[in-house]
Amino acid sequence: MANRSCVIRLSRYKNALNRLKALNFVRVFSDNLADAAGVTAAQVRKDFSLFGITGNRRGGYKVDELSDQLNKILGKDQLQEVIVIGMGNIGKALLHYGGLEKSGIKIAAGFDIDPAKFDPDGQPPVLPLDDLLSVVQKRGLVLGVLAVPDYAAQQVLELMLSAGIKGVLNFAPICLKAPEGCIVNNINLESELENLIYFVNAANNEK
Amino acid sequence: MANRSCVIRLSRYKNALNRLKALNFVRVFSDNLADAAGVTAAQVRKDFSLFGITGNRRGGYKVDELSDQLNKILGKDQLQEVIVIGMGNIGKALLHYGGLEKSGIKIAAGFDIDPAKFDPDGQPPVLPLDDLLSVVQKRGLVLGVLAVPDYAAQQVLELMLSAGIKGVLNFAPICLKAPEGCIVNNINLESELENLIYFVNAANNEK
Repeated sequence: MANRSCVIRLSRYKNALNRLKALNFVRVFSDNLADAAGVTAAQVRKDFSLFGITGNRRGGYKVDELSDQLNKILGKDQLQEVIVIGMGNIGKALLHYGGLEKSGIKIAAGFDIDPAKFDPDGQPPVLPLDDLLSVVQKRGLVLGVLAVPDYAAQQVLELMLSAGIKGVLNFAPICLKAPEGCIVNNINLESELENLIYFVNAANNEK
Repeated sequence: MANRSCVIRLSRYKNALNRLKALNFVRVFSDNLADAAGVTAAQVRKDFSLFGITGNRRGGYKVDELSDQLNKILGKDQLQEVIVIGMGNIGKALLHYGGLEKSGIKIAAGFDIDPAKFDPDGQPPVLPLDDLLSVVQKRGLVLGVLAVPDYAAQQVLELMLSAGIKGVLNFAPICLKAPEGCIVNNINLESELENLIYFVNAANNEK
């Protein structure tokens, strides 16, 4: 099975293909995709071979075909609905982040515990956390973004899982463990910045 | 030299230590940190040994000492100032994200090209992109977050680098290449969600 890094690269190839499509390109080579994704052409071919995607004899791919294949692998042949929990700065930004809609990902609803943030008629609506279970079950949702404070994260994660959520993108500044049968990817802004700081300092010290 | 994953883990250990400190813990074991970071105890010890951090004979560490050592490695022994470019949903959220201040990271200023978004007296101020060069140079800043639309990302990245920025956290939905002498870490929300979708689907298909 593909690992996380491989799937992230597939997303990048797919995004590059969408741009090429918009420019009316018909064929693309592994070198082109390698440039766009910042990897080697050999890596591109290795990733594709994992999914049985082969180019023609001269190493080229048809943009349309390849795009369809990647969309299917990434589950983009159907609309994906996601909920966002926690209407702080990050949660609100994600709720209204326009970049997702055009790529087949729709924010179904936001949730919070603060009545001042409820907006049941909004696009997307913001609902009480108490409604999470019924909304998720009624609509058969499986994906959620967690953007609550660290002290609430574990408890809300458990609520999400009990409702039937299977995949969680966690922005809460705490490393959550994924229980059996669920995937949790952690994005920690502080860690990402610390990472940058470390490598910038390390580069400076080398000089 | 440490790699990206190792430094991300160091951040996690450091965050766990801060929590233990708040609870008045004096000693901590590699098993505790392993649990908090979702790795094995052997991994914790391996990461520490890379930086010459050793525990006592029974495998324990003093919370205070270890915390100081990690803070120093991660550059947290001094305040780090960061600029944010692009005042869309994500950029604005980061500008006002309270979680960073308490960990020694300060947003120095936001930048945009839209005069409607300027707020020179704000905390932090939002300034015209034209001022970026002078602000960055005057204050000797080296870290920036890029949150502009994809079509503008490469051009703004070059502007940042020419001003002296050495480390960039990129939220623009395009994979930017880091030129010589600069570090670019890409966070792509769409790719992260696609990643979740892939693994949730894969887990379903296994059943």
